[in-house]
Amino acid sequence: MKKIAVGILGATGTVGQKFMELLSKHPQFEITALAASDRSIGKKLANMEVVPCTPNLPCKIVFSGLDSSVAGEIEEEFAKAGYVVISNSRNHRMNPTVPLLIPEVNSDHLNLLKTQKFGKGVIVTNPNCSVIGLTLALKPLLDKWSMQAAHVVTLQALSGAGYPGVPSMDILDNVIPYIDGEEVKIETEPLKILGSFQNDQIIPHQVRLSAQCTRVAVSDGHMACVSVKFNEPVKREEILEAWNSFRGLDLHSAPKKPIHYLENDKHPQPKLHRNLESGMAVSIGRLRECPLFDWKFIVLSHNTVRGAAGCAILNAELMLQAGYLDY
Amino acid sequence: MKKIAVGILGATGTVGQKFMELLSKHPQFEITALAASDRSIGKKLANMEVVPCTPNLPCKIVFSGLDSSVAGEIEEEFAKAGYVVISNSRNHRMNPTVPLLIPEVNSDHLNLLKTQKFGKGVIVTNPNCSVIGLTLALKPLLDKWSMQAAHVVTLQALSGAGYPGVPSMDILDNVIPYIDGEEVKIETEPLKILGSFQNDQIIPHQVRLSAQCTRVAVSDGHMACVSVKFNEPVKREEILEAWNSFRGLDLHSAPKKPIHYLENDKHPQPKLHRNLESGMAVSIGRLRECPLFDWKFIVLSHNTVRGAAGCAILNAELMLQAGYLDY
Amino acid sequence: MKKIAVGILGATGTVGQKFMELLSKHPQFEITALAASDRSIGKKLANMEVVPCTPNLPCKIVFSGLDSSVAGEIEEEFAKAGYVVISNSRNHRMNPTVPLLIPEVNSDHLNLLKTQKFGKGVIVTNPNCSVIGLTLALKPLLDKWSMQAAHVVTLQALSGAGYPGVPSMDILDNVIPYIDGEEVKIETEPLKILGSFQNDQIIPHQVRLSAQCTRVAVSDGHMACVSVKFNEPVKREEILEAWNSFRGLDLHSAPKKPIHYLENDKHPQPKLHRNLESGMAVSIGRLRECPLFDWKFIVLSHNTVRGAAGCAILNAELMLQAGYLDY
Amino acid sequence: MKKIAVGILGATGTVGQKFMELLSKHPQFEITALAASDRSIGKKLANMEVVPCTPNLPCKIVFSGLDSSVAGEIEEEFAKAGYVVISNSRNHRMNPTVPLLIPEVNSDHLNLLKTQKFGKGVIVTNPNCSVIGLTLALKPLLDKWSMQAAHVVTLQALSGAGYPGVPSMDILDNVIPYIDGEEVKIETEPLKILGSFQNDQIIPHQVRLSAQCTRVAVSDGHMACVSVKFNEPVKREEILEAWNSFRGLDLHSAPKKPIHYLENDKHPQPKLHRNLESGMAVSIGRLRECPLFDWKFIVLSHNTVRGAAGCAILNAELMLQAGYLDY
Repeated sequence: MKKIAVGILGATGTVGQKFMELLSKHPQFEITALAASDRSIGKKLANMEVVPCTPNLPCKIVFSGLDSSVAGEIEEEFAKAGYVVISNSRNHRMNPTVPLLIPEVNSDHLNLLKTQKFGKGVIVTNPNCSVIGLTLALKPLLDKWSMQAAHVVTLQALSGAGYPGVPSMDILDNVIPYIDGEEVKIETEPLKILGSFQNDQIIPHQVRLSAQCTRVAVSDGHMACVSVKFNEPVKREEILEAWNSFRGLDLHSAPKKPIHYLENDKHPQPKLHRNLESGMAVSIGRLRECPLFDWKFIVLSHNTVRGAAGCAILNAELMLQAGYLDY
Repeated sequence: MKKIAVGILGATGTVGQKFMELLSKHPQFEITALAASDRSIGKKLANMEVVPCTPNLPCKIVFSGLDSSVAGEIEEEFAKAGYVVISNSRNHRMNPTVPLLIPEVNSDHLNLLKTQKFGKGVIVTNPNCSVIGLTLALKPLLDKWSMQAAHVVTLQALSGAGYPGVPSMDILDNVIPYIDGEEVKIETEPLKILGSFQNDQIIPHQVRLSAQCTRVAVSDGHMACVSVKFNEPVKREEILEAWNSFRGLDLHSAPKKPIHYLENDKHPQPKLHRNLESGMAVSIGRLRECPLFDWKFIVLSHNTVRGAAGCAILNAELMLQAGYLDY
Repeated sequence: MKKIAVGILGATGTVGQKFMELLSKHPQFEITALAASDRSIGKKLANMEVVPCTPNLPCKIVFSGLDSSVAGEIEEEFAKAGYVVISNSRNHRMNPTVPLLIPEVNSDHLNLLKTQKFGKGVIVTNPNCSVIGLTLALKPLLDKWSMQAAHVVTLQALSGAGYPGVPSMDILDNVIPYIDGEEVKIETEPLKILGSFQNDQIIPHQVRLSAQCTRVAVSDGHMACVSVKFNEPVKREEILEAWNSFRGLDLHSAPKKPIHYLENDKHPQPKLHRNLESGMAVSIGRLRECPLFDWKFIVLSHNTVRGAAGCAILNAELMLQAGYLDY
Repeated sequence: MKKIAVGILGATGTVGQKFMELLSKHPQFEITALAASDRSIGKKLANMEVVPCTPNLPCKIVFSGLDSSVAGEIEEEFAKAGYVVISNSRNHRMNPTVPLLIPEVNSDHLNLLKTQKFGKGVIVTNPNCSVIGLTLALKPLLDKWSMQAAHVVTLQALSGAGYPGVPSMDILDNVIPYIDGEEVKIETEPLKILGSFQNDQIIPHQVRLSAQCTRVAVSDGHMACVSVKFNEPVKREEILEAWNSFRGLDLHSAPKKPIHYLENDKHPQPKLHRNLESGMAVSIGRLRECPLFDWKFIVLSHNTVRGAAGCAILNAELMLQAGYLDY
């Protein structure tokens, strides 16, 4: 079977490099262009020359790992020129015509593309790295019960800050209780993702969210301490059943079980569980009653795989399956 | 001025060592006995021979850093024999006749000692290491307003687990989302400390508490991410004013300002702020509105100084000032 | 093809666990017994019950990851009873009748087994975790040139100390410049391994060795800073050629290239290179002139794979190929 | 007593900040000017405005923590204009007319200033951060015996790379066996420092040096594993006596004992000993015979205090005492 040609925008950055790694042996996609917006143009990577981010690449689909300072404009140019832009950048995430997509959660949001008007092409985005794990954990619960609120405190990995990112002097023997812009994303992006597609638009979910983000000395793997309040009584066994029965998709990069519930009180842990199902599965543990909310639990996901490049590639696989990449 | 002779129970453990360090140049107390319950009996420490934990030490006051597996019985024996036992162990903390004391918060709970019936002596305890910082942060708010609930997620330091404590293989590049017994302590001890002394007993505070505890790769300094809900409207400036005007005590080890509010969004941090006022002050930062509760903020305190040995010594200083150590 | 039944002695320890992991999908060996010398007897591991270390296991070959405090006696009992004991423990390493084996280096030392007199069975050992990488790096050089001396300073990983091993409080933000017994091993074991088999015994190599060992905050991967002095002039290109042309064996667990020379000045690094060829290859870098010796360079190897369980399994594969496991 | 006005060049960098910290309560010097060469000009630091690095500062003495990319020219301008420049930068260290000064080691090298011809002012430098500890450890030995060679492998702290310096992603769970330019400094600077002043110039010491430098996950404190060869027989007790009897200077920042020999086999360690005598003393341990050289041992020193700003301030104190700062 012939593979589909794809390009990578921002190929020299952290996310771009992860795209290259994950796509290097992909059965459906083949990298035919590496583009960057900076001084690395002309450099050789994986036997290809890095070219500028101008919409004349030998492909119809581009994965974008561009820095948000430039992603907005460049991605629009590519969409105008007819490219399918599958972006990990935050710039168009909250645009009402752009799907903010997690295939297992809101594949129907691809319907938004009918109304999208960047040009002949389209833009599809994946959520922030912390949002993906959280939203996957909430989805099976929201499918069954009405939820009032979720309170989230994250312990996020260093790779989430890109490279060079966090200076070692700042984080050795330390915690930084602040990540610029992160809390707002966690309090807003899930509402769009979990929203319903009605009359060509997304009606945001009504669950109320609060986030506190911290940076810890972990290489990969974002952890979230979550407390949730339902509008109805829900039992522990019902929640476990909802998570355990949440089915994966039939896509190359999709985890068989998107959610793994771990019974050991000390789990999940970044070092032990971030690579579950090649980093594409979310692990959850410590489900127990909360004296203030109804239930509390721990969520862990690999922030640069499931939470970034891996999710974008899964988005592309879903679009291919759904006929959005027919060329 | 003649110093008061004191002994240390559990002198060879982590807390006992901290007692020795903090008491080595204390103007009011002088170590005259080192006792331990284990095979270190007979060993030399600081030019003194370690003796068994039997109530025949050349002093009337003992600081106890004993392991909770033995502290209960030994401390009672010392109290029976007439010693003032100032303990960091958890065994008697929730005993209704034992003060669970933070001098700046509930010095009036010393009145409980009148009803205590271990024998001629008494037992006074200090709270768990995570509880002290949290309770100090809440106290100025509770003095002014009615609070309904507080939600706490902690990121706790390695020294809180004693020595050898957490194996390095378990925590390098990792977070452990569980600390045995810790969450229950945070959900119960503050209610007693913040309770009111009435008719010779403590009426527990009614604020509802929820805790989630994690262990991170930090040597010293427990951080707590706190969200609080009041029963009345409270403004940001009022909270800052409450914290900033919270006065310290006139005791040797007492911090001048028990609470330091830090304006920098990235503060407090364990490495930068754990040693504020010799580790006896609590630092707070990031006070901002919470979409679910009213306000959220970060609290940091040094877990082995303010949160353990330092608090116990401050308890002793308070008792001396209040006349409880008159011999 | 029918797999050969093997048992694991010390199955619940760090090395035993690694044996289980590496043997779980081995094409030639199949675990039929898990034995331990401690209170874990009776416990279930991988659907097998842990049994005592007595020589009545349903197999003829045992891998030993026993603690050196008990390994000596137990391994001898198994050898007496006719078992082939493939040991990672240090107890019999320097016994003149026991091969201290690295298949790529001294496979002819298996001839020692003819003279070994533990009983019907035999004992074969692999070297200390730091010794294996160092000796593999030296072997291609010694094959071609006469070497006078090698000076070694190691930076060793935490997993080398077993579990629980190094307390996190001791190594976070720290280095410990001492590892009990390690320097002597590095100064003696290579001489036996690199020695020549003559008249039924090993004539030790004459190269002089000096070692200084440190423990650093790395999970896996021992690094060695090595300086070597030859008795004759040797060029840089010749050394590189010697390493690059050093051939691997045709054994299941053997790396294709036992030695990878890396040109980047910042390589090798534990995090980046410890897993080269599934952790069985050694990586070397920074070959350059030494103002005191002739040449200096950096060696890195995975201490629990190549440096322990992986080497033992490779030893077994070599013995199988050479006909020592014919039952 | 009136304090002497001093300025800081490069005040906003890592070394500049350390100068400010160490000088803030200095009994002899008072900061009257903060200068920087970058965009921080105009910023407020410690209630002073940061000004450009032009030689019109309200002082006669400047401490320079400038980056080496600009230090050469700026420092010369200040010297031309009559300032005493006390520099931590590497640019003029090997200039034959510039003292490369460690007060306890080569105070007589200040005589070079008579021949220095930058203008009315002078430039004095302190050595590289790794060189200072090493040279202090060697000095008492060289005073008594003839040494042929010293072999050094360093494990260096993160703060040695400045700020932001080493990215956390690069060093967590890792070691980097390379520090740009560092090995050459260790192999050359000590020869000048330990050289003798004769006929208005420095005759370099003849000891031969070899260095291998690594970066480890330690915040502060450079460790060196040193092996030394003498030209004559030297006993262990003699070496210990040489170190223990090495006397400190009568200067404000000088350690009473520049060298502390520690008997514990596991010492010195960065976390435990870097702050000995306020970070100005060097600690040594593990002196033992070397099978290749004569003796080997471990040296530890605080790289940003003794190894940088603290040494520069000590240089200034020496110059004040010796009459070089008479205005």
